[in-house]
Amino acid sequence: MQPKQSIIHLPVYQPGKPVEEVKRELGLKDVIKLASNENPFGCSEQAKLAIVNEIAHASIYPDSFSTVLTSALAEQLGVERKQLIFGAGSDEVILMLARAYITPGDETIMADETFPQYKHNSEIEGAVIIEVPLKDGTHDLEAMLAKVTDKTKIIWICNPNNPTGTIVRQEELTAFLRQVPSNVIVALDEAYYEYVTDAAYPDSIALIKEFNNVIVLRTFSKIHGLAALRVGYGVGHADLIHYVNQVREPFNTTRFGQAAAAASIGDGAFLQSCRDRNSEGRLYLCAAFDRLGLQYFEPHGNFVMVDTKLPSKQVFDALLRKGIIARARWSYYPTHLRITVGSQEQNEKFIQALEEVLDEAAVLG
Amino acid sequence: MQPKQSIIHLPVYQPGKPVEEVKRELGLKDVIKLASNENPFGCSEQAKLAIVNEIAHASIYPDSFSTVLTSALAEQLGVERKQLIFGAGSDEVILMLARAYITPGDETIMADETFPQYKHNSEIEGAVIIEVPLKDGTHDLEAMLAKVTDKTKIIWICNPNNPTGTIVRQEELTAFLRQVPSNVIVALDEAYYEYVTDAAYPDSIALIKEFNNVIVLRTFSKIHGLAALRVGYGVGHADLIHYVNQVREPFNTTRFGQAAAAASIGDGAFLQSCRDRNSEGRLYLCAAFDRLGLQYFEPHGNFVMVDTKLPSKQVFDALLRKGIIARARWSYYPTHLRITVGSQEQNEKFIQALEEVLDEAAVLG
Repeated sequence: MQPKQSIIHLPVYQPGKPVEEVKRELGLKDVIKLASNENPFGCSEQAKLAIVNEIAHASIYPDSFSTVLTSALAEQLGVERKQLIFGAGSDEVILMLARAYITPGDETIMADETFPQYKHNSEIEGAVIIEVPLKDGTHDLEAMLAKVTDKTKIIWICNPNNPTGTIVRQEELTAFLRQVPSNVIVALDEAYYEYVTDAAYPDSIALIKEFNNVIVLRTFSKIHGLAALRVGYGVGHADLIHYVNQVREPFNTTRFGQAAAAASIGDGAFLQSCRDRNSEGRLYLCAAFDRLGLQYFEPHGNFVMVDTKLPSKQVFDALLRKGIIARARWSYYPTHLRITVGSQEQNEKFIQALEEVLDEAAVLG
Repeated sequence: MQPKQSIIHLPVYQPGKPVEEVKRELGLKDVIKLASNENPFGCSEQAKLAIVNEIAHASIYPDSFSTVLTSALAEQLGVERKQLIFGAGSDEVILMLARAYITPGDETIMADETFPQYKHNSEIEGAVIIEVPLKDGTHDLEAMLAKVTDKTKIIWICNPNNPTGTIVRQEELTAFLRQVPSNVIVALDEAYYEYVTDAAYPDSIALIKEFNNVIVLRTFSKIHGLAALRVGYGVGHADLIHYVNQVREPFNTTRFGQAAAAASIGDGAFLQSCRDRNSEGRLYLCAAFDRLGLQYFEPHGNFVMVDTKLPSKQVFDALLRKGIIARARWSYYPTHLRITVGSQEQNEKFIQALEEVLDEAAVLG
């Protein structure tokens, strides 16, 4: 029973600590999780109603072709139906893209640090992983381009980048795409795109019309607040999507996920409200960090990567004891925390707890 | 953008026709789908309640470790937690097993005909596919054993077999497993095991204690009536499961699926009632086929494979026009239909429609 050589030493993904576990372990009553970039405002009421309406059909297989969801999204994005593919979260679209295209020995280029699933899935497929350090927390497109060889299969760009929250702008991205050979796939992961308010953020749907080798990855897990139901998607040229679809399991998304996602697309008011409140929360956190003399990367998503100037494990543990779950231990950023933008109440509690932690450390230090 | 050579010519899975599509296309008001072996009695009320209770947590990622569901199932099966792995349907467990273990050039052995996902996933991984014809609709274990070489990685046994519904019995399976080399994985797909009432059906959970190379695949899509939510699982030796888990996406099942499945495990009364009604329905269908002079394979699941003695496409189309969706076009069985055991009312309507179709064909013939 010899497994693939490429999977034996894979690290296991470490999800954010669950609230219930922290309550139990530390004997706390109130715990706030700001570790997984979930939507603090839940999901659309229309999505909830769609979930309720599916209960009567729980025993029926999902629509393999996600017909209703595909139509709703194709119309919203102004693309053809065959340009879309759905997965159980954009995680699964990443998996399918790697599984369809990567042959052992192919090279794949990504930032360091960035979302770990690009590396994970590329390694499973036997790819040579080329990691290019971020420059001031931002993708270094020039350095990434310099790594392209005739073996390069996929370049991954996480925009905004997870965990730093920085963006690559329209102008530099377009210049980059013009120089990438047309047989190299560029995966633009836009899990957080709805939160971006910067006018220089790329119009990626327009870019896929110009570049057949670009696939845009998005998700219903973030601003749509449907992380529990696992729906993400890819948009690209129909030929590129066709082969991704070749490795898709026939029933890879749930009826409930399809229905809730389609309903959520129609609830523009909910999405706008989440976007606005996130922008306010981001400003509030940045102002507090400024006041505390802490540096952070310019945030464009629903999270902020801040330099606590202390070992991040120490700050993480101290916050945990106060009932705040943050995210820490990034190998390139040993003193940074990534904190999700929560509701105003959660943000205030977090800043208060962080101040206490920093004060206690100053007294002890 | 060169995809993997192995995926270019893969056939696309053909799901059973959706009820709504048939209503629309044929202008019918009442349509019965007996094509996808779904549970005609829906799902447990406790599972429905669990779904409702998760709506408040729609924005929260699922538990990556399926803690509650794993505990409930480990206790019910009398296995350790680390012997279990969950997937988005047993489809995804098949995918993960192939992805973790199959290296290009490995050989994999399966029946012909059987559930298509073994071949699909093995082909994606570049395996050499060895298909062994069924013998009287049943797995020919002796012939399969004769195909084992030092390149064999996985042998797939679908029990009851889809589409024929036949079973491999405890005695012959144990004898077979004793002869399979211990480095060859045997995947026992038991998607329909809860429907089996034959005392000679293998006790596979006992077998995994004796054979470290056996993985049992099961699902919540059939008797549990939760096909919409995509939850299946694998049970085997912890070492075998460990490597399957290495390729699992962190959030591959939904919160709703985990909660509903855990609740359903606790509703033994619902499951017993479904099992009993299925047994009655199976008997009813077989008695009707006997009366009509039609042969069928001994059915052990929630479906019957019957020889209509006419081209199955013709019977399928004629039934469709009467509002009955069956399943046809099996390459080895050009005159067979696979029909799901429905509610008594559905079974009666199907038999009445089939009689009409056969009568009309006799008149025309």
